[in-house]
Order: sequence, then structure tokens, then C-alpha cells
Amino acid sequence: MSDGHGMHLMRAEVPGPSVGKLVSRMSDSAKILYGIYAALTVVEIVILCAAGMPFFDSCLHAFGTAGTGGFSCRNLSVGAYQNPLYDFIIATFMLLFSLNFNLYYFLLMRRFSEAAKSETLWAFLLIVAFSVGVIAVDIAPLYGSMGILHSYFQVASIISTSGFSTVDFNLWPPFSRTVLVVLMFIGACAGSTGGGIKVDRVVILVKSSFRDMKKMLHPNAVATVRFEGKPLPERNIQGVHVYIEVYLMIFVVSLLLLAREQFDLVTTFTALAACINNIGPGLELVGPTGNFGAFSPFSKWLLSFNMLVGRLEIFPMLLLFSPSMWKRGRLVHYTQNLPRPESVRKNPVVRK
Amino acid sequence: MSDGHGMHLMRAEVPGPSVGKLVSRMSDSAKILYGIYAALTVVEIVILCAAGMPFFDSCLHAFGTAGTGGFSCRNLSVGAYQNPLYDFIIATFMLLFSLNFNLYYFLLMRRFSEAAKSETLWAFLLIVAFSVGVIAVDIAPLYGSMGILHSYFQVASIISTSGFSTVDFNLWPPFSRTVLVVLMFIGACAGSTGGGIKVDRVVILVKSSFRDMKKMLHPNAVATVRFEGKPLPERNIQGVHVYIEVYLMIFVVSLLLLAREQFDLVTTFTALAACINNIGPGLELVGPTGNFGAFSPFSKWLLSFNMLVGRLEIFPMLLLFSPSMWKRGRLVHYTQNLPRPESVRKNPVVRK
Repeated sequence: MSDGHGMHLMRAEVPGPSVGKLVSRMSDSAKILYGIYAALTVVEIVILCAAGMPFFDSCLHAFGTAGTGGFSCRNLSVGAYQNPLYDFIIATFMLLFSLNFNLYYFLLMRRFSEAAKSETLWAFLLIVAFSVGVIAVDIAPLYGSMGILHSYFQVASIISTSGFSTVDFNLWPPFSRTVLVVLMFIGACAGSTGGGIKVDRVVILVKSSFRDMKKMLHPNAVATVRFEGKPLPERNIQGVHVYIEVYLMIFVVSLLLLAREQFDLVTTFTALAACINNIGPGLELVGPTGNFGAFSPFSKWLLSFNMLVGRLEIFPMLLLFSPSMWKRGRLVHYTQNLPRPESVRKNPVVRK
Repeated sequence: MSDGHGMHLMRAEVPGPSVGKLVSRMSDSAKILYGIYAALTVVEIVILCAAGMPFFDSCLHAFGTAGTGGFSCRNLSVGAYQNPLYDFIIATFMLLFSLNFNLYYFLLMRRFSEAAKSETLWAFLLIVAFSVGVIAVDIAPLYGSMGILHSYFQVASIISTSGFSTVDFNLWPPFSRTVLVVLMFIGACAGSTGGGIKVDRVVILVKSSFRDMKKMLHPNAVATVRFEGKPLPERNIQGVHVYIEVYLMIFVVSLLLLAREQFDLVTTFTALAACINNIGPGLELVGPTGNFGAFSPFSKWLLSFNMLVGRLEIFPMLLLFSPSMWKRGRLVHYTQNLPRPESVRKNPVVRK
């Protein structure tokens, strides 16, 4: 259906600060996106099979990559196969599934220049390239020439919030581990299947902060923030600010509750970061070879709540706990009262 | 002088999101505040001497408390004296110097109800009481009945951003250490001599986030954030948002640069937190019995920059590096172009 409700459903399904409709009919947009998702998955299965991975394993890893879920059928994750080719294929597809799916639509429509102009895309690629580079240098003494592949795989796995691993990055030097922790928070692009704060929000945050500093110097200057080639409404900028601050508050409160377990600070911090950003593994006790088994039932509930909060972009989850949400006895109240996205309001589509 | 420039000087000297003038003439306000500062310092010296501390040591510790600097003449800090009475006196004065000095003026003017209505005061006391309580329980197995005094002293030292210590809190259980790290970021009240993000900003942040969540449920509701009994202008709320996000960006970039030292993650994180929030000690290598000697010259420059950034409330420091600041060859440009505080604009004072 092509009305505002469909749009809200899509906003709940596709995490990120903004959702663009590809074509005028909502259902057509959804079909295109699911088509891209399915096609990329099939391509990954075929390539993995061609590289020599058994069909069943190929399917599982492709599904784990497509949903940026990162659940492998092997205890040692992708590292179990000891095959650099698999590592490279899966890492590349993790990055492909971290991009805004609209980009693939633009490519299909041969609107290459529109795709190439996406500043989120460039910011994402820049962050990935920088991280792969500095980590490769940092872990070179451990792995020699294989360092760059391990760096590429692990950066792709963490920033896409998949969580596959080829080696125990918990044993890497502190600098590499710090870079990975920062990547955990940045996360994938909006409009992808990935989690985290999202590259789009980081870009908006950086740009609006520079704008505000400029405004301090020239208070009367009119300064709009441009994002993806268009001026960004103040309402959206504020939305990003509010998101990040509510995120911070939930993080700090959860951290204090989780610290009661008396695990070391790195375990506590990265366990929470891995859950709220939907990664999977963290560092130390919850590193790629560890698990969350040592946590108490209360902490497991808390971390599960954080996983849902991160996945559902915080607000739908918090509204569930709002008394006024339940007063009228229906959840649909939420979708009805939300401001409709600009595109829907401007071009109302008549239902057939 | 009672024009806008004096106000800006005061805004630079007294950190925090808002500065209130006590009396109509700026110079009188300044005199009153310096008077309170001097009087509290003298009272602390007298009380410390009366408790048995040598005069010279009393002066030094009182000066260290008044400026929330935390520099002791003993290597073991206040812990060297092994005197619970000193601990209690200094801890209490650290908290007194963390409060907004306007409160003391209200007390002097017998405007008790105004002082008691300050929500920052109550938020601050609540955070202190909660932290002292949970840490005292957590460290009880280590110190027995002395646990509550050590907890009180260390919470006061960290939240006031003084940095004195009586025991090596780096050896405390992870939960207590996590609480202390969170307190490092919260910091003292605006209008005090303390550092950190400031309790006022935390209160505004929490209140505005709840307002924004409410607005998501009822988009057409008019919801103003009330702070200290008055509706807070949106401009100030945005100022807090921008402050926290620029703070976060500087923190993340500095963290990545500092991580190149390859110290453990807790050392790196708390070293930076201790510097940007003007505390002094952090945890692990930079704990109360350690120091920053192991860091490279580059990291020392970086941490020094962070200390200044934290002390000067970020923006004046960043503007120093703005090209347009230097283009006209004069720093005074900054004060001239800044929007003047409401009180000055509304009641222009004619210079004599």
C-alpha cells in the first residue's frame, strides 16, 4: 500500500535517519529493495560455491552476510575454513550489504552520477580504507603479508555489524582494538541491513557541528547544512542530535547496571557496545572466541533489551514503555500520530 | 565594566552553559564571587589547622580544593596524612567548591528559597549520594567501616574534578571504577571552579531528550523545557547539544591518536577522560599512584590540548584555530561578534 502507514512500516524495517522512496508506489519500492537483497544473496552463494565452499555452508554464510547477522555454522566462524578466498568474498559482500540499497537501484537505472555523488558512500569508503590501512600496519608483525586480508575482513565485519571473524582480534594490539571499538559505534549506512549509529548520522553530526561553530563566529550568517546534495531541514538535524543523546543516556545507564557483574571494564564496555550496535562479538570475555554465557540472567535481559533498542532505532522501543502509548489501548496510535515523511505529504497518492 | 565585554570575560572564566549576573554592575558581581571564593578558602584553612594539619599544608590543600586543582604537597596526596578528619573536611570543601557560586550569594542575601529550588543543586547532590552509597557497598569488603569515608572522599574528588586521593581507587572492584569513570564525565556544577561536562548540561540533556520523546508521541503539543524555574530558550538547548557533540568528536579523534601508544584500553580511555575533564588521575597506568610519564611527547601535547579544551569549554579553543578568526588580525573579533547575553541586551547599561 502506498500511503503513510506503509512508509512507517518501511521506516521501522530499514534503519537510519532518512528513508527515500524510489518510485511513487510504496509497494513497488519494497519489491525493488527485496529484489536487490535476494539477487545479492544469490550472487554471493554462487561465488562462494564457485570458490569451493560446500553449498550448504555457502547458503548459511550468504544469509548471515545479507542480514549482517554474522552467524556461522562453524565455531571458529569464517576462520575455520582457512581459505583466504572465502575471507575476501565474504568481507566484500559484508561491505556491499552495508551500503544504502538505493545505490543499487540507481546503478540498475544507470543513474551512475547520482550514485557516485552520495557523500555517505564516500564517507563510508573513506572510513573503511583508513581503518583497514592503519590496522594492517599495526598487525603486520603478527601476520606478515596476511595482515591486510585479516584487517580487511575484520573491519568489514565490525563496521557492517555482521560479527564474523577469521582470527581472534581480541589478541591484536590495543591500537587496532581501539579502532575496532570506534567502528562498532559508527556502523553501516542507513538503508542497509546493518546496525550501529550509522554513517549518515555521523556525517550529519560532523557537518552540523562545523556549521554551528561557524555560526559562533558569524552569528548573523545564514548557514544551512547540505546533505546528499540537498539542504537538510533543521528538524532532521535535531532528530540526529536527539537520537545520539538518547543513545548515550541508554548506554550510560546500561553500563552502570552491567558493571555490577564485576567483569573488567573492557569486557563490560564492549559487551554493551556489541549488543546495542548489533555486532555480536566484543573484546576480552566476549571476544570472537568467547561468549556471553558468564553474564547473569538480569544482564542477559538488559543486553537483549539493548539489542532491540539498537535494531529498532531506539524510539519505537522507548515508546513501547510510554504510558500514553498504552492509554488508548492500541499501538497503532504511534504510527498515526507521527509526522508523515515529506515525500508522502507533498505527493499524496490516491489509493485505488 | 558593565558592558557585554565584561560578561564575555566572565563567561570565559566561569565555565558552564549559562552565566547569571548577580547584581546590575558586572564588576560588583565579580567582586562578590571573588569574595565568596576567598572566604571559603580561608574557612577551609582555619578548619584544617584546627583539625591539626600544619599551616603550610593547610594552605596548599585549601588552594588545591578551591581551584578544584587537586595538587597536594605529598606524593600520596591527602592519603599521606592517614587522618580521617582531614579526609572528611577536604571532601566536603571539594563538594562546596563544585556548587554554583550564585547559591552562596543567595544564601548571603537570605534568599534561601531561591537557593533551595535550584534543580542543578538537587541533581548534583542526588548523583553524589547515589555514587557514595553504591561504591561504599561495593568496597566494604576492602575497608570495612572506613569504606564509606573513602567512597565519600573519592566521589567528591572525582565529581568536583579535583583529583585528590586517599587510597588507590585503581584497585577497587570494576563496578566502583566504572561509577568513577562516569562521574569523571559528569563533573561539577556550572558557575563553580570544577570541570567536566557539568551537571547543568546533563540535566538539560535529560530533560530535553524526554521532551523530544514526548513530541514524537504528540507532534503538535507545545513542549518547552523548564530549567531552574524558567522556560529554557531553544537556542540554549541546541547549545548544549552542540557542545556535547563537539566534545564527543574531539574525544573520539583524540582517543584514536592516543591509542597509538599501545597502552591498555582502560589506561588510554581514562587518561583522556582525566585530561579533557580536568580531573588529574585516571585508572591503571595513570591511576592515583601512577603518572603520565610513560606517554610520548606527542601524546603529552595532545593531552595538554585536551586539558585546555576542557577548561575553556571547547569553543574558545577551537575558534583560536579558525582561519577567519585570524584573517582580521585581532582576537577581539570573537567577543564582538558573539551574541550578547539576554540580560545585557535587555537592560543596556550606560557607561559612566
